[in-house]
Amino acid sequence: MSSTAGLILTCKAAVAWEAGKPLIIQDVEVAPPKTMEVRIKIKYTSLCRTDLYFWESKTPLFPRIFGHEAAGVVESLGEGVSDLEVGDHVLPVFTGECGDCRHCRSDVSNMCDLLRINSVRGVMLADGQSRFSINGEPVNHFLGTSTFSEYTVVHSGCVAKINPLAPLDKVCILSCGVSTGLGATLNVAKPERGSSVAVFGLGAVGLAAAEGARIAGASRIIGVDRSSKRFEEAKKFGVTDFVNTSEHDRPIQEVIAEMTNGGVDRSVECTGNIDNMISAFECVHDGWGVAVLVGVPSKDAVFMTKPINVLNERTLKGTFFGNYKPRTDLPSVVDMYMNKQLELEKFITHRIPFSEINKAFEYMVKGEGLRCIISMED
Amino acid sequence: MSSTAGLILTCKAAVAWEAGKPLIIQDVEVAPPKTMEVRIKIKYTSLCRTDLYFWESKTPLFPRIFGHEAAGVVESLGEGVSDLEVGDHVLPVFTGECGDCRHCRSDVSNMCDLLRINSVRGVMLADGQSRFSINGEPVNHFLGTSTFSEYTVVHSGCVAKINPLAPLDKVCILSCGVSTGLGATLNVAKPERGSSVAVFGLGAVGLAAAEGARIAGASRIIGVDRSSKRFEEAKKFGVTDFVNTSEHDRPIQEVIAEMTNGGVDRSVECTGNIDNMISAFECVHDGWGVAVLVGVPSKDAVFMTKPINVLNERTLKGTFFGNYKPRTDLPSVVDMYMNKQLELEKFITHRIPFSEINKAFEYMVKGEGLRCIISMED
Repeated sequence: MSSTAGLILTCKAAVAWEAGKPLIIQDVEVAPPKTMEVRIKIKYTSLCRTDLYFWESKTPLFPRIFGHEAAGVVESLGEGVSDLEVGDHVLPVFTGECGDCRHCRSDVSNMCDLLRINSVRGVMLADGQSRFSINGEPVNHFLGTSTFSEYTVVHSGCVAKINPLAPLDKVCILSCGVSTGLGATLNVAKPERGSSVAVFGLGAVGLAAAEGARIAGASRIIGVDRSSKRFEEAKKFGVTDFVNTSEHDRPIQEVIAEMTNGGVDRSVECTGNIDNMISAFECVHDGWGVAVLVGVPSKDAVFMTKPINVLNERTLKGTFFGNYKPRTDLPSVVDMYMNKQLELEKFITHRIPFSEINKAFEYMVKGEGLRCIISMED
Repeated sequence: MSSTAGLILTCKAAVAWEAGKPLIIQDVEVAPPKTMEVRIKIKYTSLCRTDLYFWESKTPLFPRIFGHEAAGVVESLGEGVSDLEVGDHVLPVFTGECGDCRHCRSDVSNMCDLLRINSVRGVMLADGQSRFSINGEPVNHFLGTSTFSEYTVVHSGCVAKINPLAPLDKVCILSCGVSTGLGATLNVAKPERGSSVAVFGLGAVGLAAAEGARIAGASRIIGVDRSSKRFEEAKKFGVTDFVNTSEHDRPIQEVIAEMTNGGVDRSVECTGNIDNMISAFECVHDGWGVAVLVGVPSKDAVFMTKPINVLNERTLKGTFFGNYKPRTDLPSVVDMYMNKQLELEKFITHRIPFSEINKAFEYMVKGEGLRCIISMED
């Protein structure tokens, strides 16, 4: 039992008051966790594109505390939480695992019925209220995590307990983007040793997909992007060939088929651009090719292909959070890093103190770097 | 060595002289098999919809000998054939397995580079010539099989050697339609025991897909067809529920999702209708659903779906000939029948002598029955 258990804590949080306007670091009150909830002291957090997307979106959910990639330590537990203890090192996750629903009982799904990602809810499930307030006025949660705060309250089904020796300033990036790309390759595309993999989009998620292909032993990893800027950096992630989509005036699937004697063995699409989605599917080899969609497209986009592309024994799969079940699977992803299988350092291009969090947004808007680690203690 | 090896044989064949016109049974000369070819005495053949389709199509390949579902006995071997002997019981197959190409070496593909189905070739691969002639004029082959003849010549890579105890008048239907549907379920959809499966189209291929689901232990098999005519018969194949597409004015995927608390575990599409293809994909459950496309659509059809349907962890797969490798896998399908796992009798609704072969076309045009066995010896 920590000395602060059961108390309302006052701490610093970065509050977004208006779409697209700089966050303001100020005092917020954080209520104690209720049934099945956990209060976490955040140590490190990082900025993911989904934060940026919702920060820029004019929703009725401001004021709001963003942030969903982070690592921290359990400060206190709500009633009924039996699988965590105060002091546990944890990753809070934007989606969850209740353990009971059909998805949680399935060997393959991680789309928990109870705790599946919900971007339009600004409150906790238990009572439909926020745990954050400023002068008695509630501040909205984001994705059930709100990690841009020194303390946050999260449903215990969204908390992965990890190896306490793991450096939190590195493994914090495993709670969203890197796991999403890595799992798309390792859990869904499953390339064989010596195979070829095309990765569409060379941001953090795409490079994590490439990292997965490298770990799986793919011998040829083709990076596809509309800018050559990332190509040099991508080599560190095992990317061996590059296709710049803006340099071709014919379908990219044709370019890739030509490079690979009929198509790649696997592809992973991480841009969300609908043309890339179609190219990613049609660039895999007939007979055995598997294409995995990761990137989220605009609402009006429609995936279109000739049925013969499917009938010729190609497979199209979609994935969410790399098919990882947060509580069950994330600890082993952390261990992959601890075993030096997975290299996280190369994703970390910037480090800033919490007081400068708005810089992280600037880097991302400009497309600079991959991940910016925000230290809550500096 | 048979006494007829190396000789040109004269025998009866059913020759199609013009699109859509009755076949004429007449004498044809059948040349001996060349390198890597086999001459087969056909014992039983049956009519499949693909024969009907090309018989009705105005192609420049008439005169032609149709037929590609059959069973027979090896009469003689061309040079280089080492894995077959005279007297072997065999199924000639419309697609093949060279054993050497990347597809044949793949664990999952059966789309052999050398011997993949080719409907526009009327000659043999070895020399670009036909083995059939009438008064010295060549008659075109069909799909490399041309089983509507007492003797035919087939590439040895398209010949499956089977258990000599298997009754040829039953297992002949395994050389195309039944294996196509059965394998789509057993090899590609792979439903688990107790799961739900939707089958679109209740012709022979669809009912074979249902039979696969029954064998796999699916507890709920939903048959989807535009006519209720087949529903009673479909019960014999394990179908438990029926959806008549013509009785609903909303998307069938919605009807099925409602019946199944969110979607079926697996679906198999056997009609080739593009709306059914889309419904078959969208009716599988998010998180774990797998849809398998079997039916061949019109050339202009385009498969369209919102990417979110994929991203929510659904899988779309296509299959060709049930993913069976003809030589490697068909013997075990015959054994499934011999072991009473697979029930073939219920597919056989008509039997006729070769002399009445045009009746088989009439039955199929009218949509009567499933398979009509044509006996070459009656």
